[in-house]
Amino acid sequence: MSRETTFNFSAGPSMLPTEVLKTAAGEMLDFGGSGMSVMEMSHRSKIYQNIFDETKSLLKSLMAVPDTHEILFLQGGASTQFSMVPLNLMTGSGKADYAITGNFSSVAAKEAAKYGKVNIAFDTSSCGHTRIPEQSELIISPDADYFYYCANNTIYGTEWQYTPQTGSVPLVCDMSSDILSRSVDVSQYGVIFAGAQKNMAPAGLTVVIIDKSLAGREMPITPLMLSYKLMIDKDSMYNTPPCYNIYMLGLVLKNLAEIGGIPAMEKRKSARAKMLYDAIDTSKLFTASAQPGSRSDMNVTFRTGSEELDAKFIAEAAAKGLVNLKGHRLSGGMRASIYNAMPDEGVEKLCEFITRFDVENC
Amino acid sequence: MSRETTFNFSAGPSMLPTEVLKTAAGEMLDFGGSGMSVMEMSHRSKIYQNIFDETKSLLKSLMAVPDTHEILFLQGGASTQFSMVPLNLMTGSGKADYAITGNFSSVAAKEAAKYGKVNIAFDTSSCGHTRIPEQSELIISPDADYFYYCANNTIYGTEWQYTPQTGSVPLVCDMSSDILSRSVDVSQYGVIFAGAQKNMAPAGLTVVIIDKSLAGREMPITPLMLSYKLMIDKDSMYNTPPCYNIYMLGLVLKNLAEIGGIPAMEKRKSARAKMLYDAIDTSKLFTASAQPGSRSDMNVTFRTGSEELDAKFIAEAAAKGLVNLKGHRLSGGMRASIYNAMPDEGVEKLCEFITRFDVENC
Repeated sequence: MSRETTFNFSAGPSMLPTEVLKTAAGEMLDFGGSGMSVMEMSHRSKIYQNIFDETKSLLKSLMAVPDTHEILFLQGGASTQFSMVPLNLMTGSGKADYAITGNFSSVAAKEAAKYGKVNIAFDTSSCGHTRIPEQSELIISPDADYFYYCANNTIYGTEWQYTPQTGSVPLVCDMSSDILSRSVDVSQYGVIFAGAQKNMAPAGLTVVIIDKSLAGREMPITPLMLSYKLMIDKDSMYNTPPCYNIYMLGLVLKNLAEIGGIPAMEKRKSARAKMLYDAIDTSKLFTASAQPGSRSDMNVTFRTGSEELDAKFIAEAAAKGLVNLKGHRLSGGMRASIYNAMPDEGVEKLCEFITRFDVENC
Repeated sequence: MSRETTFNFSAGPSMLPTEVLKTAAGEMLDFGGSGMSVMEMSHRSKIYQNIFDETKSLLKSLMAVPDTHEILFLQGGASTQFSMVPLNLMTGSGKADYAITGNFSSVAAKEAAKYGKVNIAFDTSSCGHTRIPEQSELIISPDADYFYYCANNTIYGTEWQYTPQTGSVPLVCDMSSDILSRSVDVSQYGVIFAGAQKNMAPAGLTVVIIDKSLAGREMPITPLMLSYKLMIDKDSMYNTPPCYNIYMLGLVLKNLAEIGGIPAMEKRKSARAKMLYDAIDTSKLFTASAQPGSRSDMNVTFRTGSEELDAKFIAEAAAKGLVNLKGHRLSGGMRASIYNAMPDEGVEKLCEFITRFDVENC
């Protein structure tokens, strides 16, 4: 199979823009006449510092990050943030509110319970995580140290369509799977974090955007590298950061800026998701798993109701270059992850295939 | 400057074999006809699992890792291990012995003191960390949960020439800057860890080799991702690992195997280091900073005694393509890091330059 005819619907790691990979390949042995690969540069060198600064500044500008907030380039994935958030922030009342809308918010809440008292603001497990709670359903504790939620649930294919209003309680959000796909008012958040491997860069980089006023109150047991304060003070370079992933993020951000930034991407991803949900909704065979109003624009989950037909669909799609459509084992069915780097053509081909499969198997 | 005429003596991140970078560039857009970059592959896919398994198995074979030990591919650098080690192992007597021979072991000891009682087995700070203690000088506590040391001190240019004998106390060693450069009897160690960015792969990967019998006794406050037990149980894939860095490690290991593995590398690095120390020792102007018997084969530190002459040397060397020779700010002078991927030609050119500079400036 060639790159031109393969569309990878993996939930992450996932597609990167072809232009970005071409640039990376071209610069692999010699970056800008330095005689070195970016992989070989000291993180303390001027040439690397420029790459780092440019990437950070591009992200700041694309997401309109206010000066009250700091951008950190860390490691360990979102799962490390599950601990880093309570270790650093659960030190006022020692309580935090968690909205459970899927697997990752559930794990995050369990982890936080190691370090303080977790209040469940809402839990959608009774409906199989097929929807997002409404604002009026959220139980918010006015004295909580923060309110935690996961913006997009990759496994179940649901996505928050609004920003929870929590009064003076800082918002903490896991945006791993929809960051950079839609406009976000960063000033409303205490902490935003995201594993890079969906919309940003190769796996191994975690982006954190934190309101600086929240740092510096970590528990004494906080491991060195899990202190937001230290990471802010050292501009993410207390030790060697994941230099090459940061460089790759820079290339992805340049590419995003060239095509019109987040507003353009938001338009594109909404149109694509609508096209796919329409194909599913107008079919006889397929049903979308998530409830209307809660559906994710990044991970479209659907099923036929028959495990055999699902398997047939997945196999035939793969033979046509539409790969990695199998749903997560926790939810079954199919999942089409259509992150920023998915070409429109991939979604068009998937819609055509859904329609054809529907006719042929009804 | 071109790649062919640039020799990068950076202490890390540092040079990678040119052949490895060529392979990576060639496979960037399409790995083995998959139509995908390795960066785009799901870590749960068969194709990526093969890369992961092959890398692990190559490392196991090259380092002769016994079946009692597990190899982990983690994130966060050696500095994260500074916390992970005590959180997981300091739970028997709650005491551990630390040999302080430089900056990184000193930070590690301070970090461990958060979680238990640290005994200083030896501290070389009184002599400016210019030497490694002898076995007979080490104060070993028979009831310590482990004995900790840093095999090679990048800043000061010293390296342990022997493996400390500690009886039944497990050995924990930070091998970040000399792993894969010399033969090590892994069975003698409880935990070996190394940031990858010197001899192994691009920054963002931490390799841990752990005696499995030591896992599963972590403190209850241990963050999820900092549990050795969980990482062993999930084969380093509790969440998305740094997939591309692991792939790059695989390429580096294949390259190492092709040139004869660690025994061949050991011969080569010893000869190179000897050549460089000889050039320094036979000069009138230069002095090696580390004491004989403690000198590192990876980071050769030296100086003229005059800051002005040092600066002149560094600038003139850089103009000749011998770059990043400036010593660490804590030690001053010069530092030539000659890791595995440094071509012999780089060391030969540096020796010639030292000799010429010596004649011209004496």
